[in-house]
Amino acid sequence: MNQEVVLGIDLGGTNTKAGLVDKNGKVLAFERFNTHAKEEFPIFLEHLSIVFNRISGPFKDQISIKGVGIGAPNVNFYTGNMERAHNFSWGEITPLAPAIHEKLNLPVVATNDANVAALGEMVFGIAREMKNFAVLTLGTGLGSGIVVDRKLLLGQDGLAGEMGHVNVRPDGRNCNCGLSGCLETYVSVTGIKRTVFKLMADRKVDSILRGYNYHELDGEMIAQAALDGDPIAKEAFTYTGNILGTKLADLVAYFNPEAVILTGGLTHARDLLLVPTQESMDARLFPAFRGKVRLLLSSVGGAHDAVLGAAALAWQHL
Amino acid sequence: MNQEVVLGIDLGGTNTKAGLVDKNGKVLAFERFNTHAKEEFPIFLEHLSIVFNRISGPFKDQISIKGVGIGAPNVNFYTGNMERAHNFSWGEITPLAPAIHEKLNLPVVATNDANVAALGEMVFGIAREMKNFAVLTLGTGLGSGIVVDRKLLLGQDGLAGEMGHVNVRPDGRNCNCGLSGCLETYVSVTGIKRTVFKLMADRKVDSILRGYNYHELDGEMIAQAALDGDPIAKEAFTYTGNILGTKLADLVAYFNPEAVILTGGLTHARDLLLVPTQESMDARLFPAFRGKVRLLLSSVGGAHDAVLGAAALAWQHL
Repeated sequence: MNQEVVLGIDLGGTNTKAGLVDKNGKVLAFERFNTHAKEEFPIFLEHLSIVFNRISGPFKDQISIKGVGIGAPNVNFYTGNMERAHNFSWGEITPLAPAIHEKLNLPVVATNDANVAALGEMVFGIAREMKNFAVLTLGTGLGSGIVVDRKLLLGQDGLAGEMGHVNVRPDGRNCNCGLSGCLETYVSVTGIKRTVFKLMADRKVDSILRGYNYHELDGEMIAQAALDGDPIAKEAFTYTGNILGTKLADLVAYFNPEAVILTGGLTHARDLLLVPTQESMDARLFPAFRGKVRLLLSSVGGAHDAVLGAAALAWQHL
Repeated sequence: MNQEVVLGIDLGGTNTKAGLVDKNGKVLAFERFNTHAKEEFPIFLEHLSIVFNRISGPFKDQISIKGVGIGAPNVNFYTGNMERAHNFSWGEITPLAPAIHEKLNLPVVATNDANVAALGEMVFGIAREMKNFAVLTLGTGLGSGIVVDRKLLLGQDGLAGEMGHVNVRPDGRNCNCGLSGCLETYVSVTGIKRTVFKLMADRKVDSILRGYNYHELDGEMIAQAALDGDPIAKEAFTYTGNILGTKLADLVAYFNPEAVILTGGLTHARDLLLVPTQESMDARLFPAFRGKVRLLLSSVGGAHDAVLGAAALAWQHL
């Protein structure tokens, strides 16, 4: 009998990664290609089809492809549509899963990238033995995937887990979504950059970061500066962790999870972020939850991480 | 064949209500008795046993009792224990469900009162056709019961849904739980009373409420004053609704429910609370959720409401 595999797709605003993955998380073949998010959607479909044939061709006689799992921004699990995704010129509603189903003639399931990250941890990562947990992706924005009793929390319209848009303060920072004070305007790579600029305004202390303009400064620079002892960069991580920890205490009050797992660019700073986050969370945890929730870093990681998550989605839901 | 019924018990800090309820929510017999929360736990068990025999006796030959459902403060669903409940002198951990099981020789299931309220709405109330919703009980404190895909959200330790203790502001009002700024210190009968005292400090305007001391003032007086046009009382409801609406927008971002249902003493003021809450929630709702969530008042109500919820728990879980 042929080996059963699925196609996992991580669709990002810049690049798309696709890989053939078996039930144990072994990646048989992998390719990365330009998403062409600013061209027409059919251009993407053509590229995907070519890449699919190229990576699956050599294994044609050895594998049986069960289906396709996709992680992408703003995807509705129930319809498979991508809805109002920033950074894409594919229209208000893109029939992502239906169109790929038609193109590749395989069953397709899709959800947003944070949900995919959560499934990746549950099937192949640090949450393999867990029943109730949340994964937060701290990248350009903040996404969250929440697992209840080993099932993705989807909600009535397949849109649950928008923790990036819970409110930190009513009169807070302007968000892409049109609201003010959303969590992701503070806790994300973009958020910490905004915090650095606020602190350069508030403080008198010197900082290497004062030498960069807003376009130049990125998350890596801030993390490196903090590791080098720069006072503004260090305070920015403390500020970020404080806000994150407060909101994690809320998350725990809602869900009573056994763990919260952090992943994404902001976590490259590791303890710089983890320590203030843990302190802030512990300080605000409702007594009944104290000592019952672990704060962890993702164990999936690596170039294939999101493809593994997308594959996990296919294995779980097809 | 005998008619199948369950015993529903609503255990409160002052009174306990018990009733025999059939599958359609018909209450065959009902009694209320003093909980004796400040005496030993076995005293309660004796009373319960007597009441049980008294209400079930007349039906002995016509009914078959399937089991017992209990709603009580701070109950862990998985163990049936009541854990560190304020207002009770029954010890740190009270083996509520196990002891009642032994006393009445029936299967017993127990959870906290807000979860019971949510099941009551789902089985006998306004949420009969709903799959994903939350019920908030706005009484002395604030409880929440959250239903995901027609199942109670329980969490890893059976303690999920502690929305009363999400944080409104880090330096906020002192809470019974030892934290500061918990939602229930603002949004509850006790919360609105505290708000009235804050507004009497902040404002110069006259108010009938200035004639009452802190012990005298209760929720009914504040609601009546607001209905009569009292400026402090009216502002107190607006203030309360504003905070509640902001946190409901967060709840929607986490859970993507189809409805949020409010119940408890604070909701007797109806539109005084609902209108500012709805406005505040709408203003902070993440775009994808706009128009997708309804804010409703409980439809169960009446003297038997919590007993019906406890019966629903038994029907669902035994």
